Amino acid sequence: AEGRVDLSHGAGGRAMRQLIEGIFHEAFDNEWLRAGNDQSAFAVSGGRMVMSTDGYVVSPLFFPGGNIGSLAVHGTINDIAMAAARPLYLSASFIIEEGFPLADLKRIADSMGVASREAAVPIITGDTKVVERGKADGVFISTAGVGRVLDGLDLRADAARPRDAVILSGSIGDHGVAVMSNRENLQFDAAIVSDSAPLHTLVAMMAEAGGRHIRLMRDPTRGGLAATLNEVASQSKVGFHIDEEAIPIKPEVAAVCELLGLDPLNVANEGKLVAVAAPEGAEAILAAMRAHPLGREAALIGHVVADDYCFVQMATSFGGRRVVDWLTGEQLPRIC
Amino acid sequence: AEGRVDLSHGAGGRAMRQLIEGIFHEAFDNEWLRAGNDQSAFAVSGGRMVMSTDGYVVSPLFFPGGNIGSLAVHGTINDIAMAAARPLYLSASFIIEEGFPLADLKRIADSMGVASREAAVPIITGDTKVVERGKADGVFISTAGVGRVLDGLDLRADAARPRDAVILSGSIGDHGVAVMSNRENLQFDAAIVSDSAPLHTLVAMMAEAGGRHIRLMRDPTRGGLAATLNEVASQSKVGFHIDEEAIPIKPEVAAVCELLGLDPLNVANEGKLVAVAAPEGAEAILAAMRAHPLGREAALIGHVVADDYCFVQMATSFGGRRVVDWLTGEQLPRIC
Ligand SMILES: Nc1ncnc2c1ncn2[C@@H]1O[C@H](COP(=O)(O)OP(=O)(O)OP(=O)(O)O)[C@@H](O)[C@H]1O
Ligand SMILES: Nc1ncnc2c1ncn2[C@@H]1O[C@H](COP(=O)(O)OP(=O)(O)OP(=O)(O)O)[C@@H](O)[C@H]1O
Ligand SMILES: [Mg+2]
Ligand SMILES: [Mg+2]
Ligand SMILES: [Mg+2]
Ligand SMILES: [Mg+2]
Ligand SMILES: [Mg+2]
Ligand SMILES: [Mg+2]
Repeated sequence: AEGRVDLSHGAGGRAMRQLIEGIFHEAFDNEWLRAGNDQSAFAVSGGRMVMSTDGYVVSPLFFPGGNIGSLAVHGTINDIAMAAARPLYLSASFIIEEGFPLADLKRIADSMGVASREAAVPIITGDTKVVERGKADGVFISTAGVGRVLDGLDLRADAARPRDAVILSGSIGDHGVAVMSNRENLQFDAAIVSDSAPLHTLVAMMAEAGGRHIRLMRDPTRGGLAATLNEVASQSKVGFHIDEEAIPIKPEVAAVCELLGLDPLNVANEGKLVAVAAPEGAEAILAAMRAHPLGREAALIGHVVADDYCFVQMATSFGGRRVVDWLTGEQLPRIC
Repeated sequence: AEGRVDLSHGAGGRAMRQLIEGIFHEAFDNEWLRAGNDQSAFAVSGGRMVMSTDGYVVSPLFFPGGNIGSLAVHGTINDIAMAAARPLYLSASFIIEEGFPLADLKRIADSMGVASREAAVPIITGDTKVVERGKADGVFISTAGVGRVLDGLDLRADAARPRDAVILSGSIGDHGVAVMSNRENLQFDAAIVSDSAPLHTLVAMMAEAGGRHIRLMRDPTRGGLAATLNEVASQSKVGFHIDEEAIPIKPEVAAVCELLGLDPLNVANEGKLVAVAAPEGAEAILAAMRAHPLGREAALIGHVVADDYCFVQMATSFGGRRVVDWLTGEQLPRIC
């Protein structure tokens, strides 16, 4: 693809059809899009379904380990998966700035196609809008997804109970630090790569190993692990005790966080999950996670406690204890 | 709500939670959002479902007859309804420019809440991102929706057959002209108001009256009636003969189109549908439509013909005949 997106690509005429067919349908390539309706149809068996959506505005659009397109596929798959659900179908809405290079749009769409095929979750419907130069920033993508809850599971935000185990699937901070260092043009010996990845097959293995013990799951995206735990604490009206030593973090990620003045607990992840599980199920769930490529470093990082103040407290590496709060302010804009 | 959106409202911390709860959950007000999960769950009985999405970038954000919020609810409901489906649930993804007035955001969210309640289609999950000043234009909204296909119906883009009836639910051009005149600051005696409206109850009545005769339905949005008919013509490999005299258009809309040099056939509608139906079903469908407030002016505007060139031809008011082509170029940016 050569040239640039212009306003006619969003105007509902022939140019728009050509863009949609030449770039998006080509990249996403599936029978639903080929049917060419205003919506796409699929058959479901009865049961519980879930729906989720996220907008993606990451800057820069391309970063080590992914781009806005792969992120938009993984992120929505993950929010579906966090309900212990199998993601089934995605939609994708594009808002493109006039002048955006068609070659970049194609790279992004192609990455979405690859991510969607690898995850076996097709993008079955979409939309394309173009706004004037200076009225957007390259491209923004909103994906939505639907999925089917795995039989017999019903996770809830208020289900955490004192003594429950807190399990983290792997190292924290990779995504946020990869994007930030790319943005700040930092050069390191060890390349730091986003952890952007689809977590639904990991979830399926967890569910098989100990599904009835899982109280709830979350992907610690914006606001990082700190925001996720604080959110669950207030929703379940409990506290958390976590152990800094138990939280996996790559040395190079820790180093950049120190350099940029970031607390890794506040940094976004895009391929990690936190599960709260009944204590008797924790071992089996952990073992299943460690057998999956995306859960090899899964760790028990703490447990739920009774706490009317809903505090998240952390035993530090130095033998102390501190309250882990939500991020305040605007520390990390446009990380996802 | 006072003040303005700042970057912290998108950063995953406490400010974001407060914005989401104070403005969005308050406006959309339903049990799914209150559950506070990363996704929302709902039960379905087995059958055919549909999914659709649209992004909304209309400028100005507020126009006679609606705003970006009500439009984002109606538009996605309509794309679901065009499958002869009952819309069930919506998601909403917001991309907001730093500095956007909270009062305007609240007005938009409140309109979405009203539109969603009036249509009985709840917004069950959402997302909120904030980008720096100058990197978006106020607010962009992407909605996605899921619905359930009415029993026994299965509409397809390639189903139009020669001799089929072409039915239009009402006057054309109202939405596009309302937005354009507002944008150009044109003042008229008769206020021109967008036709933005949810069409699913009209569709339900059509389906009841003659569902098995309906081949396909489309909402003639961007590109107008001309784009919709050309699209169906090429998908079904047929031609259309339509009759200009039969196409309802308000005199004041026709007047503005002339003033702005627009062909009303290319102008977007947001509360109209085109149905292609087997000839023997047309009368019953038309009668059912005319009994619905959104179909009072429904008209038979032409029929499908065999045509290897897939032309849309129109008998003009002057007794001539002309080919109605897709819009070329960027005539009407950011109408929806
Ligand atoms: N970026 C995209 N990726 C994949 N499919 C797309 C994309 N944009 C549009 N489509 C598909 O192209 C077809 C036409 O889309 P279009 O947006 O014109 O339909 P619509 O929503 O009915 O019209 P409007 O957006 O004007 O309301 C649909 O099948 C839609 O799913
Ligand atoms: N504009 C909105 N309208 C309605 N609900 C919203 C809106 N924005 C967010 N929500 C809801 O708030 C909750 C938290 O949203 P949030 O986006 O933080 O979750 P997430 O998608 O898991 O995180 P991230 O977006 O960082 O990946 C979800 O229940 C979501 O549905
Ligand atoms: Mg998310
Ligand atoms: Mg669309
Ligand atoms: Mg999440
Ligand atoms: Mg549409
Ligand atoms: Mg989100
Ligand atoms: Mg449509």
